[in-house]
Amino acid sequence: MIRVALFGAGNSAKAFADSIKRYRSGPKAGLWHGKVGGHAVKELSVALIYDVDGDKVGKPLAGVKVRPGLLLDEPPRHLSQGSFEKQGEASLASELKKAKVDVALNLISSGQERSSKKYAEICAKLGIAFVNATPALVANDRGIVTLFKRAKTPLVGDDLLSQMGGTMLHKGILDFLNQRGIKVVKSYQLDVGGSPDTLNTLQDEIRAFKRGIKSASIAEELPYKVDTVAGTTDFVEFMGSKRTVYLWIVGKGPLDEPYVMDVFFKSSDPVNAANILLDSARAAFAAKGRGGVEEVISAFGFKNPPKAVKVKKAMADFEKAYLR
Amino acid sequence: MIRVALFGAGNSAKAFADSIKRYRSGPKAGLWHGKVGGHAVKELSVALIYDVDGDKVGKPLAGVKVRPGLLLDEPPRHLSQGSFEKQGEASLASELKKAKVDVALNLISSGQERSSKKYAEICAKLGIAFVNATPALVANDRGIVTLFKRAKTPLVGDDLLSQMGGTMLHKGILDFLNQRGIKVVKSYQLDVGGSPDTLNTLQDEIRAFKRGIKSASIAEELPYKVDTVAGTTDFVEFMGSKRTVYLWIVGKGPLDEPYVMDVFFKSSDPVNAANILLDSARAAFAAKGRGGVEEVISAFGFKNPPKAVKVKKAMADFEKAYLR
Amino acid sequence: MIRVALFGAGNSAKAFADSIKRYRSGPKAGLWHGKVGGHAVKELSVALIYDVDGDKVGKPLAGVKVRPGLLLDEPPRHLSQGSFEKQGEASLASELKKAKVDVALNLISSGQERSSKKYAEICAKLGIAFVNATPALVANDRGIVTLFKRAKTPLVGDDLLSQMGGTMLHKGILDFLNQRGIKVVKSYQLDVGGSPDTLNTLQDEIRAFKRGIKSASIAEELPYKVDTVAGTTDFVEFMGSKRTVYLWIVGKGPLDEPYVMDVFFKSSDPVNAANILLDSARAAFAAKGRGGVEEVISAFGFKNPPKAVKVKKAMADFEKAYLR
Amino acid sequence: MIRVALFGAGNSAKAFADSIKRYRSGPKAGLWHGKVGGHAVKELSVALIYDVDGDKVGKPLAGVKVRPGLLLDEPPRHLSQGSFEKQGEASLASELKKAKVDVALNLISSGQERSSKKYAEICAKLGIAFVNATPALVANDRGIVTLFKRAKTPLVGDDLLSQMGGTMLHKGILDFLNQRGIKVVKSYQLDVGGSPDTLNTLQDEIRAFKRGIKSASIAEELPYKVDTVAGTTDFVEFMGSKRTVYLWIVGKGPLDEPYVMDVFFKSSDPVNAANILLDSARAAFAAKGRGGVEEVISAFGFKNPPKAVKVKKAMADFEKAYLR
Repeated sequence: MIRVALFGAGNSAKAFADSIKRYRSGPKAGLWHGKVGGHAVKELSVALIYDVDGDKVGKPLAGVKVRPGLLLDEPPRHLSQGSFEKQGEASLASELKKAKVDVALNLISSGQERSSKKYAEICAKLGIAFVNATPALVANDRGIVTLFKRAKTPLVGDDLLSQMGGTMLHKGILDFLNQRGIKVVKSYQLDVGGSPDTLNTLQDEIRAFKRGIKSASIAEELPYKVDTVAGTTDFVEFMGSKRTVYLWIVGKGPLDEPYVMDVFFKSSDPVNAANILLDSARAAFAAKGRGGVEEVISAFGFKNPPKAVKVKKAMADFEKAYLR
Repeated sequence: MIRVALFGAGNSAKAFADSIKRYRSGPKAGLWHGKVGGHAVKELSVALIYDVDGDKVGKPLAGVKVRPGLLLDEPPRHLSQGSFEKQGEASLASELKKAKVDVALNLISSGQERSSKKYAEICAKLGIAFVNATPALVANDRGIVTLFKRAKTPLVGDDLLSQMGGTMLHKGILDFLNQRGIKVVKSYQLDVGGSPDTLNTLQDEIRAFKRGIKSASIAEELPYKVDTVAGTTDFVEFMGSKRTVYLWIVGKGPLDEPYVMDVFFKSSDPVNAANILLDSARAAFAAKGRGGVEEVISAFGFKNPPKAVKVKKAMADFEKAYLR
Repeated sequence: MIRVALFGAGNSAKAFADSIKRYRSGPKAGLWHGKVGGHAVKELSVALIYDVDGDKVGKPLAGVKVRPGLLLDEPPRHLSQGSFEKQGEASLASELKKAKVDVALNLISSGQERSSKKYAEICAKLGIAFVNATPALVANDRGIVTLFKRAKTPLVGDDLLSQMGGTMLHKGILDFLNQRGIKVVKSYQLDVGGSPDTLNTLQDEIRAFKRGIKSASIAEELPYKVDTVAGTTDFVEFMGSKRTVYLWIVGKGPLDEPYVMDVFFKSSDPVNAANILLDSARAAFAAKGRGGVEEVISAFGFKNPPKAVKVKKAMADFEKAYLR
Repeated sequence: MIRVALFGAGNSAKAFADSIKRYRSGPKAGLWHGKVGGHAVKELSVALIYDVDGDKVGKPLAGVKVRPGLLLDEPPRHLSQGSFEKQGEASLASELKKAKVDVALNLISSGQERSSKKYAEICAKLGIAFVNATPALVANDRGIVTLFKRAKTPLVGDDLLSQMGGTMLHKGILDFLNQRGIKVVKSYQLDVGGSPDTLNTLQDEIRAFKRGIKSASIAEELPYKVDTVAGTTDFVEFMGSKRTVYLWIVGKGPLDEPYVMDVFFKSSDPVNAANILLDSARAAFAAKGRGGVEEVISAFGFKNPPKAVKVKKAMADFEKAYLR
């Protein structure tokens, strides 16, 4: 069994736990990869779950009681009215150790930089593979990378890339236009959602911060410079965890003729994370023994890997390393 | 020089001729492939142009006087009010021979089945490489294929695939979703345009006929069965040669969560043909000496090649054979 | 009670019957008008239902056994594989008479011109108010109108207008742009659906026929000439009774600046008919005693009334005559 | 002649001046109302223009040299890199007086609250009718309103409503759905643009502030509560003064059947202001002699009038008061 700890008890954590239950046996419809690093989904087991939301701590999620986590930053904005429960670093570390956790997935709210880094440091010390799904700079932090190198433990991140979200669709279409000889002139991508994380993300600084990541991530895809704007955009509470992406892409073909594309794309946040989490957890486990950033997994499933790679190459590399 | 005859003096013929002029020298923006089969665009030369429209015959197109062509079918519906000019098979053949034509591009109206086949037969006899851009079954006609085999002359077709039209975009997005582990459940594609060819295409039988081609062509792209409807749909005269494509695609991800995509795509018909015609003419010339259907070119640039191949493989095969 | 006969046992008939049941008592959410001509929905009662589909005749619809109807035209295309049941004019008339029917709603398939007219003639003779929801020319047929005048019985039609379908939305947006001082330059409307009626409608002649109705109906809305194309467009079987409308509207504002609007609108056919049928049946009943075309109801709820009126005026006239 | 002063020399000022020139004589295509308050466009004359942008001051706009204006707030963000020119209140007042200005239009950047109020106070003292096109609270400020009442001078505002922008379209469609008996359940509106004003508007506080105005303004349109989110959303620099609006509207019809509408709407900011400014300037002039908020003009052309009125009533009231 691969024993997994989840930092964060939100929608992504739930989707991860639900997916394990669903794909443990029976039909595999919707499961992207049957085996990753030689491991089936049924080998995954959620050992521990942590959160700081007073409404979640103490209650079960997928059969596991949520424990109080670290809270080293300002509380996430969407919880500003509620109560919190937290615990210290030492006791949390001893819980992880006692539970013999193999892999930890960091799924806490956007903007929790310090807590994210501290979780990573604790895992490095305990030899637990760490997957950072948040935009916090963890796999991009030299100091933390050094800790994982020394500990000969894999580190994966940063900022989970949806299986098929706005960024991925945007990249895929730009790449396809480029392959077909259409020069992309400009494009933009707007994301609208109603999850608490969208609300946090909207805080001004985080907004600018994340915007930088996505635009860079998309520019990566084309061999020439293009006017591209991409970012989390707006919070529409009644959308819940649903997300709508609007793409507008203008290209130029022969004889300067324009190609104009408008795309509406509707999906849901947590489910878009499920397969990437299932894959990253299994791949990170398979990578145990290697220390530092696991570049192939990071480039495959994350928006801001330390070493960016085009989508296709990232997928091919992952396939070669973990799917055969 | 590669001496080209154009059957049809419509928008595609014009875009082909204009592209040669534009990309003969100066900046290559919008040109897909610099050299194909070792040949630059400036090596192409339009030697002869044929049409049956009384308003076109006798007038110059791109500096070449349009001559009367074959008219063996009912006249195209959009010309039903006009006058016609045609000539016999023998005199047309002797013109082609005298002009030392290397490659012929068949660009006549949809629905001109007999004329298309006769043009092909004449070319086979004269050893002229033949590219059938119309939906008429030419490269899919056993008898005609045999003629080209015997003549050791390449035959390419059927039904030109736009560089980036509805069919291509539809295929590209389905393939991308499939690669990203999203199961496509259903999709449809609507095309709206205002060109005379759209009008012809709307005639009932042709409609059904072409619908079959496109749906099959798209189904090709996925490894499983999917409810797909695709076809030329509606004629909106004031759109002229502009074309709008509407795609609706529904997929299923993990935990049965739906992904729904609506795409508007605006392009223009003739310009969408230009690069494929430039490439096919050069590749067909480079293939001279080989007889029968030239499968690599046909799969690369045509909706209904005798042997269908997925888009990516078709592009890779073409690249390997003609772009190195 | 208002005793209603339904010619046609398809989706619209079902939606009508279901609506009566649903709004007979309890909450009225979704019901457009509480009372029409002084009559509440609970006063409506379905007395008889007729169809020619062998699979429907003899079976109950909303508690009423479907009887065999008239079949004076070619069978509807979507039934071309099935069996039929029909009865003669005389026995059908005697059934209607015996059941003391007050109002008949003609809901048979598009293209059933002769049967539609014959149903109307029978009703005229029996003094039954007749509402023609099909595109057949009934309220636009002078001879039939004369029969109803003589019988002092109201006649309503032709071609039911959806409560909010493509035509209505198209009209509403054009009118609104006009009111706001934006000059509409061109527009088109595409409808895609999967109901059997959509399939019938697609037959070429019917297509042209209905196209004429809709384009004229929309042109009505603006005080100046505009390039407008509107029509039933495509049949996508897996859509079932769902319908998607695509609108594209281009306007011009001050300093020749363009306004461009693209609209996707998703609704469902039968439910879109329910309120108009509930209203027309009640209003036609209230109009009993007046003979010939009932212009106010026809302009309110039908695409091709003998005397066309702008949407707003039609709604205001209906309100004044039947909702106070 | 109606002598107009423009505070702000941006795109709206330019569109206003260009429109006067364009519609002074010749064809009136694009002009919404020929005469307002009895005055034709050719009676309008731009007497003075003010701005604080060092790049604009001293240069002519539409033949009038731009003078330095008031700068009592933080400079607008988009000018944060540039130089400024400003003048004192007293000298500015004396220029306005000397030029015998009748009407002033406040077109300065979003966020310039103090300058906007000061401009209004100066105009009140001089008996100049004041039209506040910015979101600053001027016509909604009791103190300022009192000044205009005492001065028997009309005050109009706040926050110019586009002739056909996102807010107007959103309102128009919601109203139309309501009229057709469709219950609106939820809707959102996203605006994307590239003008400097969009950038200013994006500053966090202003964002929240303006969001409040728009959502309230739209909620006004329906007789029941609905989940509506509307606001300026995102800045995409390469869009320049173009603006794209995305609407998503979900309604419910009979039998709980959903109606779903997605709208893309493309227009341009300054031109959308031109007709409203031409109308407001003429109407405000016609209202001279009446003191305090001119409610009919404010409700007709502004998003945040002191007394909100539904779009249709506002248009009808304006028509009655000024167009006859």
